[in-house]
Parts: sequence; C-alpha cells; structure tokens
Amino acid sequence: MQRYKLTLEYDGASYAGWQVQADRMSVQQALEDAIEKFCGERRPTITAGRTDSGVHATAQVIHVDLPKNDDPFRVMQGINFHLVIAGHKTVAIHRAQAVDETFNARFSALRRYYRYRIIRRPARLGLDAGRALQVAGELDVEAMKTAAAQLVGHHDFSSFRDSQCQAKSPMRTLEALDINILGNEIHIETQARSFLHHQVRIMVGTLLKIGKERIKAEDMAMILAAKERAAAGPTAPPEGLYLVGVEY
Amino acid sequence: MQRYKLTLEYDGASYAGWQVQADRMSVQQALEDAIEKFCGERRPTITAGRTDSGVHATAQVIHVDLPKNDDPFRVMQGINFHLVIAGHKTVAIHRAQAVDETFNARFSALRRYYRYRIIRRPARLGLDAGRALQVAGELDVEAMKTAAAQLVGHHDFSSFRDSQCQAKSPMRTLEALDINILGNEIHIETQARSFLHHQVRIMVGTLLKIGKERIKAEDMAMILAAKERAAAGPTAPPEGLYLVGVEY
Repeated sequence: MQRYKLTLEYDGASYAGWQVQADRMSVQQALEDAIEKFCGERRPTITAGRTDSGVHATAQVIHVDLPKNDDPFRVMQGINFHLVIAGHKTVAIHRAQAVDETFNARFSALRRYYRYRIIRRPARLGLDAGRALQVAGELDVEAMKTAAAQLVGHHDFSSFRDSQCQAKSPMRTLEALDINILGNEIHIETQARSFLHHQVRIMVGTLLKIGKERIKAEDMAMILAAKERAAAGPTAPPEGLYLVGVEY
Repeated sequence: MQRYKLTLEYDGASYAGWQVQADRMSVQQALEDAIEKFCGERRPTITAGRTDSGVHATAQVIHVDLPKNDDPFRVMQGINFHLVIAGHKTVAIHRAQAVDETFNARFSALRRYYRYRIIRRPARLGLDAGRALQVAGELDVEAMKTAAAQLVGHHDFSSFRDSQCQAKSPMRTLEALDINILGNEIHIETQARSFLHHQVRIMVGTLLKIGKERIKAEDMAMILAAKERAAAGPTAPPEGLYLVGVEY
C-alpha cells in the first residue's frame, strides 16, 4: 500500500455534498468510483472537510491508500481520466503527492481556509450561476468589517453552529474573517484550525444581515455572547462558499 | 415599438454558438424564446458579435424592438425569469437600456473587446472545465508578447482568417493584443472595431505555437506578410474565448 495526498477542485452545484449518499451523487462517490476504475479496488478516502451540497472547492485535500506504488503524476492523470469519462468533468485532482502513513488528511490539518463569494448586481447571475451569491441591494461593507472583527479569536461559537452539529465543544479559534472588495464582488475570507457545522455560512448570513442594515455592527458581540443559534442571522446559501485550502 | 439595448453574459459550453441553428440550441434562440414568453410576440434580435459554439460572453450586446414601452429594469428581470424557467440559467441579461431607433447593436459598435483565458497546469480543469484552455507545458510569455506586438495596427489579416470568412476585405485595424499574467492564468486581451471570422482564435493559436517554441517570435511578421491561412498556427479552441465588451 502507498498513501497519496490528493488536492482537488470541484463545482459543488451538481453534487449532494462531499459525503456518500444513498440516493444522490456525491463528490466522494465520484472520486472513489474513479479511484476504483484506476486501481481495480474500492479504496476509502479521508477528507479534510466534508463540504455541504452546493459548496465548492478549489483545494480540497484527501488521502487514500492505493495497492500499487505509482508515480503521483500518473495517479493524478489516471483518476482524472476516469472522472471525465464518468461525466464528472467539473471534478479534477490538480496535485498528487506520495506521503507516509502518518499523514491524515483530516487529523493532520492545521488550518482550513474558506472563501465566500458575493456578487452585487440587480440581475441574477449567468456565468456565475450556482457559483456565487447574488445580492441586489446596497451593502454597508464597513459595518460588515467592523462586525467581522468581533468574531476573530477564541470563542464559544454556539450562536454560529447548526443544530445538527456533532462537535463535542463549541469552542473554536477564528484566526481571520476578512472582507475584501474586488470590483462588484465581495470575498469573505476566513481561516481556522476547524469550523463548526455551518459556522462559515452562519457567520456570512449574519454579516449580510448587518450589511443590509437589518441589525447593527455592534450587535455582533451580543450575538456571540448569546450562545444560541437563534441569536444569529440566517445560514447563507451554499453556492457562494469555497473550500480554498488546507494547511498541514 | 420601443428599442432596447441588452447586455448579457453566457457560458457558451452548452450552446451551438450565438446564431439560431436548425438542430441545436443557440444562445440567440434561448434569448428570443424568453423574449417571446415575456412580450407575447416573436421579436428578432440583432447582435454585436455572433460568437462560435463554446465561446462565452461577459458583455455581449444585442438590440430588440418590443411592442410595449416598459421600464428597462422590468424588461431585464422579465426576460431573465423566462430564461431560468426554460433551463437557461447560465444566460443572463445584466443591463437593459431604452434606446432610440438609430441605435444598432451591430452597426453602431465602435469597438469589440475579447479575452482569451489560458490556465497553465499539468492537470485538466475542473471548476473551469469548458471555461478556459489548459496548457500543461511551459510557455515563453515574453516571446508571445514580442510576437503579439507585431500584429497591432492596420494590416491585411488574411493569414488569420478562417476559410469560411465572408468579410469583403481582409483589412482590419488591431488596436491592442496584450498578454497579462495573473498567477497561473494568462489572459490575452484584444480590441478592434471588428474582427475577421476566427481571427482572435487563430491569433491565439499562433501565439501559443510561439509560446511553446515551435516557431520563433520573429516569424510573426512573416506569417502576417504571407497573407494565407496556412502560414499561421492552429485555431485555438473556443472554450478560452470571451466577448468581454462592446463600445458604442
């Protein structure tokens, strides 16, 4: 057996999220099917982050043990080939490395990076349909920045945690939550060792509520202190979210 | 009748190009079907540029005469709604203006802007599948820039003209052909009052041949002087090309 670290990208719009589902195609199933075609055996994959349905990745990381010690480039090209012929053209491995058995894509991860893409315009999206969130009205970006700064640090993030979250502790250290303007786009960039279930999308949904002036930037501290989901804003839709990197 | 100028974007990957075809769905047909649903009548559209199958647009411009004088915002939202419910979610109007009858999307255009997106990496594209050209090997970008500069100006572009081109004259004034590096992407940006059939794709295909060092940058002047299609490089694939603007 040889362990490989694979970095991959995908458009989440056509998939029921990362994890294998009984009735809908997941990214994990697409990948494991292609791996099976490549190496002739069903091999389980371990991922750095189980993205939700509709959530994208530019640099998701997984590890998998394959029966043969192959050149990593050949592994990448072989699995990519089987993804394409099975119709999964928007899923692609873009980096492959041979690693030793101490590497674990999930448990060795030191830091995960997510980006949330918002496009401000009156019309619905065409080229970026399903790949960003469209916001028609004005957004007070300065208020969003002020509010975002209050979430950075080591906190109890119970207010920003989905009711189905299975993490033992609601304590997390948010290392960054930056809001950058690029023309008519707003990118919300965040990083932490790990996030609670839906944490990024609930933080974004709350920031958007502040940007639309439905609540004040100063309310963010109270929302955090409330430690209950009902205090925060809605969960932002999945289509704007990208897993953009994992650090080991 | 009221004339409207509509600016739209689309992912050309799913369409047989701009122009209506007997057997395959075109962007024009998708748009005219939606306009008919919106206003109750079949109305012809006139476009600034008939993009080929697989070619995209971020800012294609068309004009159309509609029976009622409606608020342009309502026209945009109404046609966009009918595009979506017919399944054309990657086609969207993002600007609508009421114009007088002297405006013609094709003949009033002073300048057209195109971008060609190249992504340099060993793996095939996932998120950008069908939306950029992947180049695995090295590219000598400086040689490409040197060669590109030789095409700018008023020239006989017969070498960069498809055999099916119906333009009366091969003379065109190329106003710009710039090559910009953005991380692992190369954007070739070009502008002219008008282009010959496949001119941008043949210029890009020839620049790529130079970038791959199959021919020298200095050969570009000879290729131009040859005034025959066989002298230039191959026609670059459609998936990297975007119509990014039309000036009036």
